[in-house]
Amino acid sequence: MEHLPGFREFFPEPIPSGEAWSAAVREHLFERWHAVARRYGFQLYDGPPVEPLELYTAKSGAEIAGQLYHFTDKGGREVSLRPEMTPTVARMVAARERHYKKPLKWYSIPQLFRYERQQKGRLREHFQLNADIFGETNTAADAELIALLIDLLRAFGLSSEDFVIRLSSRNVWQDFYRRHGNSPDRAYDFFQVVDKLERNDPAQSDATLRELGLSLEAVRAFIAQGAPTVELQAVLDNLAARGLAEFVRVDYTVIRGLAYYTGIVYEAFDRHGKFRAIAGGGRYDELVTLVSGGRSNVPAAGFAIGDVVLTELLKERGKLPAIGERLDAYLMIEDESRRGESLSLLQRLRDAGMVVDFSLTPAKPDKQFKRAQEAGAAFTLALDAQLRVRVRHLATREEAILPHEGVETHLRSKLA
Amino acid sequence: MEHLPGFREFFPEPIPSGEAWSAAVREHLFERWHAVARRYGFQLYDGPPVEPLELYTAKSGAEIAGQLYHFTDKGGREVSLRPEMTPTVARMVAARERHYKKPLKWYSIPQLFRYERQQKGRLREHFQLNADIFGETNTAADAELIALLIDLLRAFGLSSEDFVIRLSSRNVWQDFYRRHGNSPDRAYDFFQVVDKLERNDPAQSDATLRELGLSLEAVRAFIAQGAPTVELQAVLDNLAARGLAEFVRVDYTVIRGLAYYTGIVYEAFDRHGKFRAIAGGGRYDELVTLVSGGRSNVPAAGFAIGDVVLTELLKERGKLPAIGERLDAYLMIEDESRRGESLSLLQRLRDAGMVVDFSLTPAKPDKQFKRAQEAGAAFTLALDAQLRVRVRHLATREEAILPHEGVETHLRSKLA
Repeated sequence: MEHLPGFREFFPEPIPSGEAWSAAVREHLFERWHAVARRYGFQLYDGPPVEPLELYTAKSGAEIAGQLYHFTDKGGREVSLRPEMTPTVARMVAARERHYKKPLKWYSIPQLFRYERQQKGRLREHFQLNADIFGETNTAADAELIALLIDLLRAFGLSSEDFVIRLSSRNVWQDFYRRHGNSPDRAYDFFQVVDKLERNDPAQSDATLRELGLSLEAVRAFIAQGAPTVELQAVLDNLAARGLAEFVRVDYTVIRGLAYYTGIVYEAFDRHGKFRAIAGGGRYDELVTLVSGGRSNVPAAGFAIGDVVLTELLKERGKLPAIGERLDAYLMIEDESRRGESLSLLQRLRDAGMVVDFSLTPAKPDKQFKRAQEAGAAFTLALDAQLRVRVRHLATREEAILPHEGVETHLRSKLA
Repeated sequence: MEHLPGFREFFPEPIPSGEAWSAAVREHLFERWHAVARRYGFQLYDGPPVEPLELYTAKSGAEIAGQLYHFTDKGGREVSLRPEMTPTVARMVAARERHYKKPLKWYSIPQLFRYERQQKGRLREHFQLNADIFGETNTAADAELIALLIDLLRAFGLSSEDFVIRLSSRNVWQDFYRRHGNSPDRAYDFFQVVDKLERNDPAQSDATLRELGLSLEAVRAFIAQGAPTVELQAVLDNLAARGLAEFVRVDYTVIRGLAYYTGIVYEAFDRHGKFRAIAGGGRYDELVTLVSGGRSNVPAAGFAIGDVVLTELLKERGKLPAIGERLDAYLMIEDESRRGESLSLLQRLRDAGMVVDFSLTPAKPDKQFKRAQEAGAAFTLALDAQLRVRVRHLATREEAILPHEGVETHLRSKLA
């Protein structure tokens, strides 16, 4: 029996297949993400992986509605596996924001889902780090988020030669459309054309733009001039003060597809142009109001970075560490009469926080030693007939004979 | 708009509501679970949260079928949110076991789901640590797993006064039923009666037992004698050699509900009898064969420990640490003309791995100081007019004036 199409299985390293992902690689990403987000003072939250369908259909716009992994539950409810985290966190903030000091700096690492009927071979799930700041309209919040995004990528050894943040703003395009467009109620259609400008057929883009009183030529000319607005310059200055200027550039081709964005938006791209966007985000000052039916009004901004493109990018750039089993020690049992005493030593070492494995059943010493090497053990240990511990450092082949009690201290000093 | 019934939202600490859970508490559990499982040489894996329905209906027995969170997906497939991890990992092992050295020691921390129509107010999701050993029939594997379970609970400060592992075996009841029952094909019905003996109406249990040629009296008498079999004695001896004897006792009331168990089974219980089982597991030597249609035959044993009962237990015993924001430093900006230099210092400290927060927008120094205290900052930092750093240790009120460059080293020595 197979797993469902589009879902990944995460095996331990080393993985015998060709996938880039494994549980160890995923954990490597998550651990660094947690560490960097915490360093920025962000706090962890999580929400339900299943949500009422209408949380997405009304809020995110046409871009997401056709891609939802939605179904009818046993109670007859129309529900969906979460396709994104933003509506969930907007609801959570609306419900409890009065109990927290603002601004809130919250992050999460949810698994997200989508289901497009047509596309075969596409993943139906991925993981994302989501980071958001609630309760701050100042562009300083956007800059703090972009700095975090940069450091989330730098944490894996990526530099400004590997990626760039393309910075833009819905406000800029809102103004442009207000000045030049002819159908005020079709602004979102216009944003969709800009969002897909690099992917769609130029003739088709031009046709839609002309319906709106615009033209592809005018839009391209506006993108080409690319001068930062006062709002964007404030973000650039803030990032420059942090020494992060080289990671950002203004690029008005970025506008983001989702309906709820209201201000500064940005996407992180591979400089070599080989991968889809690595991350994206922006300001969504009205979503909390919308989700709470007006009971709560909290401005917000945030971004998401997915595990799939980042893992592929890190693999391609050789930035994924060799991850395998790594034991502090492998406890060899060379004489079965000493298994009981060996188990006692095993427990003591594990109690002391050491990663120790051993052969559950009798095995020849050379087979146990081979297993220790395969498992990447730093040391082998074995009790001799006097119940002293023979410690062997595998890298240097150094050996020492120690009393039963002194082993933890000896190993810890060598491992540190 | 509300979240769906039975799903939890995990807020950051401090949580204004009465729930025991929060994202911080959950992370506290997960971090310790990861650390202890790794110490035992277990390796992380994960699988899809949605699986084909038949993965569960055929394998787990009546106990689970009525509780599944199942639905029809957009492609017309009968699928289910995973109610347990064992069938998934059995399939993964069957698919790839030839590429790994045995025994495999694998663990995972999945979110699991159930959906019973009748029961209101019951959670429809929870998290579980699952740990399994594949490829070893010897009871040494069961003992290693039980030792791990004990240490997963001891990691939170629980002692043998708080919990006990009740050890039993399907083999014992299989033998009993073979000797005394009258319908060889109804063994699973018999196991179900034993499993529910403590919860169900005794008259009803007795009636079913009499159908099978047995009686409640005979079953109770067998439980009361409770002598360990050779198989169970081996597990007890192994755990005693590790110094863990006080955490285990033979108790034949335990048999486990799921259909696939084949040998040693056990459950962890609160000694005060206040909570449902904290954890449970056992041997399931035929599941990999069953799931793979006979292509792979790997004996297996494992257990699961959930987050809900453990969190409630830890809260009741006062073993949940006070978890809140904990900053290494709060960077105060007392003069807005020094914001740019302050951002530069901020970035340097975060690059050095420190958890540092600051006010995104201009605020009065006393308000910034109050925020530093609320956020649990160890230090406040501020640039003076000469761009030297005034460092203040909040606990001792000690102050120091340092050059811009020396701050990381100073803080790190104080924080260590």
